[in-house]
Amino acid sequence: MDNQMLPFEQKEYERRVEATRDRMRDEEIDALLIEDPANMNYLTGYDGWSFYVHQMVVITRDGDEPVWIGRGQDANGARATTWLSEENIRAYSDDHVHSPYDKHPMDFVAKVVKELGYGDQRVGVEKDAYFFTAKAYERLQQHLPEAEFVDADLLVNQVRLIKTDREIDLIREATNISEAAMQTGLDAIEEGVPESEVAADIYETLIAGTEAYGGDYPAIVPLMPSGDHTGTPHLTWSDRPFADGDPVILELAGCRHRYHSPLARTAFVGDPPQEVHETAEIVIEGLNAALDAAEPGVTAEEVEEAWRTTIAKYDLEKESRIGYSMGLGYPPDWGEHTVSLRPGDTTALEPNMVFHMIPGIWFDDFGFELSETFRVTETGAERFSDFSQELFTK
Amino acid sequence: MDNQMLPFEQKEYERRVEATRDRMRDEEIDALLIEDPANMNYLTGYDGWSFYVHQMVVITRDGDEPVWIGRGQDANGARATTWLSEENIRAYSDDHVHSPYDKHPMDFVAKVVKELGYGDQRVGVEKDAYFFTAKAYERLQQHLPEAEFVDADLLVNQVRLIKTDREIDLIREATNISEAAMQTGLDAIEEGVPESEVAADIYETLIAGTEAYGGDYPAIVPLMPSGDHTGTPHLTWSDRPFADGDPVILELAGCRHRYHSPLARTAFVGDPPQEVHETAEIVIEGLNAALDAAEPGVTAEEVEEAWRTTIAKYDLEKESRIGYSMGLGYPPDWGEHTVSLRPGDTTALEPNMVFHMIPGIWFDDFGFELSETFRVTETGAERFSDFSQELFTK
Repeated sequence: MDNQMLPFEQKEYERRVEATRDRMRDEEIDALLIEDPANMNYLTGYDGWSFYVHQMVVITRDGDEPVWIGRGQDANGARATTWLSEENIRAYSDDHVHSPYDKHPMDFVAKVVKELGYGDQRVGVEKDAYFFTAKAYERLQQHLPEAEFVDADLLVNQVRLIKTDREIDLIREATNISEAAMQTGLDAIEEGVPESEVAADIYETLIAGTEAYGGDYPAIVPLMPSGDHTGTPHLTWSDRPFADGDPVILELAGCRHRYHSPLARTAFVGDPPQEVHETAEIVIEGLNAALDAAEPGVTAEEVEEAWRTTIAKYDLEKESRIGYSMGLGYPPDWGEHTVSLRPGDTTALEPNMVFHMIPGIWFDDFGFELSETFRVTETGAERFSDFSQELFTK
Repeated sequence: MDNQMLPFEQKEYERRVEATRDRMRDEEIDALLIEDPANMNYLTGYDGWSFYVHQMVVITRDGDEPVWIGRGQDANGARATTWLSEENIRAYSDDHVHSPYDKHPMDFVAKVVKELGYGDQRVGVEKDAYFFTAKAYERLQQHLPEAEFVDADLLVNQVRLIKTDREIDLIREATNISEAAMQTGLDAIEEGVPESEVAADIYETLIAGTEAYGGDYPAIVPLMPSGDHTGTPHLTWSDRPFADGDPVILELAGCRHRYHSPLARTAFVGDPPQEVHETAEIVIEGLNAALDAAEPGVTAEEVEEAWRTTIAKYDLEKESRIGYSMGLGYPPDWGEHTVSLRPGDTTALEPNMVFHMIPGIWFDDFGFELSETFRVTETGAERFSDFSQELFTK
């Protein structure tokens, strides 16, 4: 076994498993089946690009260690990246993969659940986790007819909400990478340069990282809507060259051991019209008002309210949340899907919660976006990056 | 609307929709709900990093155009990247996203299906598509109690199996990027250089592309298991420096308009032992035997058999498929999940099917892998890349 790869001490993983068990007890769940790759990593360390096939981590009420279940060729990856003992690494044969034989990985998972003695117990599943498909659930129900299934979606995500100091340190390392990549991107944007070239430079920096350490792949690719497309936040780059008069929004995240530190800034190619400057000022003011509002005991919706109140002074309003809890993640998302900074979310902030706050204002022909990743401290909020908050002109 | 972004002519999309309808008729499906992002792109052109929230394309028995359903802030992306008319772009409000209000995007999808008049018809869903979760299906069933749901998993993927010449051209363009990135990677690998630095160089080339065009993000990150880890195919890079005596497997893919051309080669840092050379020769011989066997009418399992027979001469065997149909894709996979080159798959090859054949042999302390993306021609098989098939020493 090769546990030097683990970014945390074993006792930290054990703490996470116990915190998960506490929640399982609250929900009277006897066995929890986890397919979310971030949750699998959080509890066992497992890290590999193998989530394109079904895989699972099982936490049982009475077991000591989690059980990893995956494809045969990934069992070595589990040995290399997790703290689990050999008996808790269970692999299914390759004829279960995209199978023409009516075999499904969940047939094997169901068998393991039975062997562990939980086939007729209350079994929690993450009903809205990305890779836990309708068919995966059907197969489990079919093979475990005596189990009582309950929705345990976001159960582990809730455990992830408050970070340890070591997790904060990894997000700080990711921040150094984010800042380097942002600077690379801003330097590369120029009239006539294709978007793909700027994206290439940004990617190079995201992965090469800093002098001290390299970067991991981010859960979301760098997004850089520009020109007419600043109102299409999830469009990826093309070969279009930047043109004079283009607003360009850059949203990216450095990543260390799967922990992210997203950062967004806006640039303008050429001389920005006065209204772009004005919009930038409003967004900067609104974001900082929201940051100032964040402290332990304040609710998620109160943070958003500080933003909303600020921009309302300028007769502006914006639908949609302005931020979300995040940290550990795999494609397609670094968000944790738990707490959001938006009306109706009454979660009270606690120290070491980490959010990505990304407000923006879009008009028909331009948009301005600015973001900060911040942690809640004992007395307020601390942003990870000190990258200048301004409209960058190129 | 801004349809210059479409990589295919509108009539090609219409052909794809009609081919999908043919299969729907065969299965007596009245409305097909598609959440696989590659299938959404295939039918409508939709391209954005928005698959981290639920979204859908609906094809109805009698409708003209597909209907795109997604998040409000992604509707502009649908306007920019699809050929659909405004009335067929339907957006749900942001309070459906990771909602604390017991709202789910499928509540909205169900409403649209009803409005289209298919709420009490046979509705096909892709039961094992990555982002079609157990909860998504439950919500649809709940809101469409009179619908009869049928499994339409891989229905559109089957339509994708045979490529048009334009699709082949895009895979050729992707191949030029793959070759450049492979050369970059091989040039960068050196004793003492961290894996992350090599990964950064590869990524830069994958996105910068060639003189003529840039690259898109690949559906799978470059994989580069090395040293002891050549038997862990899906481990991603770390900061470990390459060491003398390391075998290094590089698997990567250039991407153009979401079409991939994967390529894998193996390098060795320092002077490879004789057994590594011998293994390389066997894999090269086996792969080419399988390539030689591929032609129209030959079955997928017969192609694999040519590989298996070849390595058996050297008393070797290997469990698991050696290749799969592929092309268009989004993270986490470029594979199409239909035809595999393995025992039991009796699909007869047809011209313009495209496969990634990736056989390899792994021992305890090293592995050798080599891959080719190839298309079936009228008379045989043509590999896209002419990158040298050898053991690269560094």
